[in-house]
Amino acid sequence: TDEQILLAATLVLDAKRGRNINFKTDDKHVRSYILYHKWYLRWALYAFIIIDLSLAFVEKPAVSFTAPYWATILIELVCLGFFIFRFCHAAYVEQSSSFWKDTKHIIVLCTIILMILDIICYIIWVNVAPDTNPVRWSRPLRPLFIVNFSDGKQVRRAFRNIRKTVPEILNVLILFFLSVLLFALLALKLFSKRNSLTYPNGDPYFKTYLDCIWDLYVLVTTANNPDVMMPAYDYNPWFAIFFVCYIIVCLYIFMSIVLAAIYNNYKKNLKNEIRISVFSKRRKLNRAFEILKDKVGDQYVVTQPTWNKLMSVVLEGKSQQQLDLLLHVLDNDGMNSIKKTQFVNLSDLLQVELTEVNDRRTFLEHKIPAIYNHRVSNALKWLIRTKAFRWFFDFLIFINAFFIAFDVDKSDWFFLVIFTIEIFLKVYTYGPKNFATRFWNIFDVLVIGAAVLASIIEIFIGASSEEFRTLDVLLVLRVMRLIKLFGSIPRFKVIIMTIVNIGPSILTYGGVVFVFYYFYAIIGMEVFGNKISFHGYNDTDLDPEKQTCGNPKLAKSNFYMFHYWFVLVTHKAARIYFFFFHLSCVVIVLNIFTAFILEAFILEYSLQKQPKLESAVEAKIKELGLGIGYTPNTTGRPTIDTIELVENEEVPEDPVPPPLKNQPDDPHDDSDTESLPDLSQEQGLRFHLKKRSRKKVEVLLHQ
Amino acid sequence: TDEQILLAATLVLDAKRGRNINFKTDDKHVRSYILYHKWYLRWALYAFIIIDLSLAFVEKPAVSFTAPYWATILIELVCLGFFIFRFCHAAYVEQSSSFWKDTKHIIVLCTIILMILDIICYIIWVNVAPDTNPVRWSRPLRPLFIVNFSDGKQVRRAFRNIRKTVPEILNVLILFFLSVLLFALLALKLFSKRNSLTYPNGDPYFKTYLDCIWDLYVLVTTANNPDVMMPAYDYNPWFAIFFVCYIIVCLYIFMSIVLAAIYNNYKKNLKNEIRISVFSKRRKLNRAFEILKDKVGDQYVVTQPTWNKLMSVVLEGKSQQQLDLLLHVLDNDGMNSIKKTQFVNLSDLLQVELTEVNDRRTFLEHKIPAIYNHRVSNALKWLIRTKAFRWFFDFLIFINAFFIAFDVDKSDWFFLVIFTIEIFLKVYTYGPKNFATRFWNIFDVLVIGAAVLASIIEIFIGASSEEFRTLDVLLVLRVMRLIKLFGSIPRFKVIIMTIVNIGPSILTYGGVVFVFYYFYAIIGMEVFGNKISFHGYNDTDLDPEKQTCGNPKLAKSNFYMFHYWFVLVTHKAARIYFFFFHLSCVVIVLNIFTAFILEAFILEYSLQKQPKLESAVEAKIKELGLGIGYTPNTTGRPTIDTIELVENEEVPEDPVPPPLKNQPDDPHDDSDTESLPDLSQEQGLRFHLKKRSRKKVEVLLHQ
Ligand code: NA
Ligand code: NA
Repeated sequence: TDEQILLAATLVLDAKRGRNINFKTDDKHVRSYILYHKWYLRWALYAFIIIDLSLAFVEKPAVSFTAPYWATILIELVCLGFFIFRFCHAAYVEQSSSFWKDTKHIIVLCTIILMILDIICYIIWVNVAPDTNPVRWSRPLRPLFIVNFSDGKQVRRAFRNIRKTVPEILNVLILFFLSVLLFALLALKLFSKRNSLTYPNGDPYFKTYLDCIWDLYVLVTTANNPDVMMPAYDYNPWFAIFFVCYIIVCLYIFMSIVLAAIYNNYKKNLKNEIRISVFSKRRKLNRAFEILKDKVGDQYVVTQPTWNKLMSVVLEGKSQQQLDLLLHVLDNDGMNSIKKTQFVNLSDLLQVELTEVNDRRTFLEHKIPAIYNHRVSNALKWLIRTKAFRWFFDFLIFINAFFIAFDVDKSDWFFLVIFTIEIFLKVYTYGPKNFATRFWNIFDVLVIGAAVLASIIEIFIGASSEEFRTLDVLLVLRVMRLIKLFGSIPRFKVIIMTIVNIGPSILTYGGVVFVFYYFYAIIGMEVFGNKISFHGYNDTDLDPEKQTCGNPKLAKSNFYMFHYWFVLVTHKAARIYFFFFHLSCVVIVLNIFTAFILEAFILEYSLQKQPKLESAVEAKIKELGLGIGYTPNTTGRPTIDTIELVENEEVPEDPVPPPLKNQPDDPHDDSDTESLPDLSQEQGLRFHLKKRSRKKVEVLLHQ
Repeated sequence: TDEQILLAATLVLDAKRGRNINFKTDDKHVRSYILYHKWYLRWALYAFIIIDLSLAFVEKPAVSFTAPYWATILIELVCLGFFIFRFCHAAYVEQSSSFWKDTKHIIVLCTIILMILDIICYIIWVNVAPDTNPVRWSRPLRPLFIVNFSDGKQVRRAFRNIRKTVPEILNVLILFFLSVLLFALLALKLFSKRNSLTYPNGDPYFKTYLDCIWDLYVLVTTANNPDVMMPAYDYNPWFAIFFVCYIIVCLYIFMSIVLAAIYNNYKKNLKNEIRISVFSKRRKLNRAFEILKDKVGDQYVVTQPTWNKLMSVVLEGKSQQQLDLLLHVLDNDGMNSIKKTQFVNLSDLLQVELTEVNDRRTFLEHKIPAIYNHRVSNALKWLIRTKAFRWFFDFLIFINAFFIAFDVDKSDWFFLVIFTIEIFLKVYTYGPKNFATRFWNIFDVLVIGAAVLASIIEIFIGASSEEFRTLDVLLVLRVMRLIKLFGSIPRFKVIIMTIVNIGPSILTYGGVVFVFYYFYAIIGMEVFGNKISFHGYNDTDLDPEKQTCGNPKLAKSNFYMFHYWFVLVTHKAARIYFFFFHLSCVVIVLNIFTAFILEAFILEYSLQKQPKLESAVEAKIKELGLGIGYTPNTTGRPTIDTIELVENEEVPEDPVPPPLKNQPDDPHDDSDTESLPDLSQEQGLRFHLKKRSRKKVEVLLHQ
């Protein structure tokens, strides 16, 4: 029935997207569940979270503009209203047994309740005793919404990783702190009795045990290195041995061991996560199969009509040929039906990108074919497709960068014009649709477009006055095109690949760091906001620790918080705050980030060494000759596929270069595919195989 | 013949010690080769290298005392004389074909020649034109002797690792520098035109391209963070985005990728090194077997008489029982002779420590048995062997540390006396020989002995005057005994084990770092020594980079160099010097060190999870019940073995606790060893099996 198809399609989509909600299976709830995952509701959630978080910019200790308290509370109530709606929606669609066991829902509910309580308290407080500096104590809880709504899956996974790692590295951390305590004891005995030893500004030098611990702990952050050593060194150079031993043991050895412990756990957790995710996908597909199955002969299969119905829901709007093709790829015994063992490959198959190649004519070729296919036009297109054309413009980018470096401003217009022409020529040749699919092309349009725009505004408003220097930023972005040059050099490809692959995950860790910083920033503001004042940054006796690890990133999360950090040093209770800040943000989060990059790089590197690694589905696609660049049964002239766009415009995709297919000893030619139907010609459909995708990483980690 | 036995024994010893010199095999050269490896010649070499390196302390730009130039040159000539002797000795014993192909010998020869040339030049220069500031330019070459004499094997291996790693990570480094250049270009465009932007002291802010590159490069060392950002941030807070992006890309991402690339290469190189070393050991043992073999029946074996002759050379001074035992362990088919396949295990077997347990009576038991074995004495010994005794003193250490922390000086004497008594009681109970074999006991004797000595000197010389505070250092070392406490807590054992295991290798890396620092220190002194003067460290505009990475370790290598580093900042050419210094010492050497600790920790951790991993020889020893704590065939009362010394006095050795052997379901009891002779009772010899030794690491890496 349609309802069953819808349920099965929802399960398949969940498997594809890695969702893990145990939703109610009757039709009404399934439809509501589909609605729950609609993009507009998800993006509305993101928007409300951002609005809620941004309130800190205009709330009370703000720098430039402070909104009245009722306004921010009103906005926050609207946000909370949406959060409650979203929460109720989730509670409605999910099985209540699993819903109320899920920690993230409990946290969301508690957070909402606490925030409402806080708002009520605050309103009463402000109206009853406005002079007692009322506090909105629930504000540090706001980033919890990023983590605990089910849409923040990646950030939550990173948090789960941190939560699982902390107990395991606790022993290392404890031993590290014991070492610090031991060295502090040594320092106390060595220095506290020597009364002539003081800091240059007269402060006592290692006088009390707590001071020793603090100074040595800060030394691990390298923030007070070597200032902390200097008085002792001037007193007697041999005291440097103490500090050198401390740095070697506590900084180099212990911090490396912390990294090792975190890395070891990270790898273990990653393998676990992937195992669980694959298992959960299989279970969903099994459930979908149980719903869809029909008995044909003596076994249960998904028949072609059922398949078509399912896929018309899953892949809404795709052509019948595509559905047939997908069936054919899964159905590796040619029965026109799918067995259970074949069906579990579906989520892998849906990950593979599908492109229709039957109509590759460009927009202009449609509209003005006579001119577009004219001899001159064809010659131009040929020219633009040559490597020389690319090299010429790469060279121009380089020259432009050189001119920028040596401040030859007069050439700016020349380069802008010529790069604009380059873009138009490429659009003309490849067609706007094709052009827009490449990352570097869009990058070029944005960069050059911004520069042109800035230049035009400058001309209209007047010569470059100091105020309009802001527009320079846009002009400056042109030099970012050099990145494109780096990316086209083969030796840098693994590295650039790693950075590209880890890009989204870096955003995830950015989210994690943001959550921590927001939390600490708000707390810091509330606790220290009234007790300190800004002395200016070239004050010489401020603690460098705050500058080092506090500022640069806080600047990112809360710019206006910046100035509050400086003079805290005078208050010793503040040390506890900075200790936790350093421990959670620098020692743990940064090391997990390093562990993540280590693992990503090493995986990328081993994948590069084993290009043969592929999933069953990809093997099948290649066997059928349906991948782009693979045509096992034809030996014709190179099609447009292979010369589609110049090579360096795209992320490197294929270790087998396209020209290979024309060679008679092509390994794909002598495979046993003669008996298989050649779908590539008649259907004009191609699968877009990504080499070394995340999926590959899963395959590798499963070994 | 004796000559053949000597040759074979030399080969076996080389295999055991991992030496790799292709020496000449006639008797005269073999004897000379044995002489070459005598400990006194090796230590003489070390001594002369140290003397040669220490000359820098009294040479011309020295701080306190400058020796006349002829004296240092005379000493250096003596050192060079010994180096030449050592070099000629090596050339004499090694096959000349391999000798002259070896890079390390070429380097030693060139270094010696260059140094002699330099000495001649210098003498002429000093006598002809003493006012033109003569330069001893060969001095930076001195640390090459550490690396290139064949005795510095570990340091050379670390250098080889660095040499092999650098080409592989070059791509990452180049890409990193390109990124820095790109960001510098952006910074130039953003800031150079804004004339109101300057550093607080009025210095130009990002004015020239080279300044931009330098300031951003220093930012990667975190030395000028956030000072470098402040002017731009004050001008416009949004400029912080630029610096935050830079720090994320170039510091967090790129430095992590550098670490990943280095770690990946380190692992690969380590596996290779171990494979090569095992292969070379096998080849040596094969050669030894070919020399020793006799035909018995239809196969070649080493007979028992040959074995005894060989072993009397290899294990000089060991008893006949030990040799028989070793034969029995190797000869796993009971033929009283050793086949080739058995003989290759010999180097593994020789690694295993052998202890004779037949005479365990202590010194006092020999001398005054009546008193020593008296009832009171026995009760005392029993008391000292109890856990309560250990716990009581552990507790006292803790109390003592507490008193030190809170400056209760009056109890010092009490603790000194009681800890001294503890040491005497232990010596009484365990006997001086047994006592001295434990690391922590020696540690205690040194620490307490030093404290007692310092206290006595203080009493004789007078009350604690400021000058004699130096002795406090010795008193303070007592708190180091807390480390012993940490080590006895099970949860910290893996970590402490890792640190203990990597201890020797840390010294190796210390050697590597020393070579680099000495080289840079001497060059820095020669180049900048005359152009700069010391302004004092609390000068506010000195470049923090020199403080951060230059000083603490330079302090270690050349204390007196320290003050020269500060004012260099004014001279821009000095930047090249510091750039190379940072790159080689911080980016490469420190990351290799981190990679090494990462790998060591992860290996240690996996070994802990797989305690079954052991070499064939160790399995055989356990099977025969010859390991300490293993007695498969006896169910008698616990021998002295198991209660020998309190557990926490030793590095944890055995995951199977000794008491296990008294349980009837001991896994070692039901092994099929009934038919094997029980050598443990009659011979009183035991093998001392080290759990998780370096050898295990080799086994693991071979998988
Ligand atoms: Na710093
Ligand atoms: Na620093």
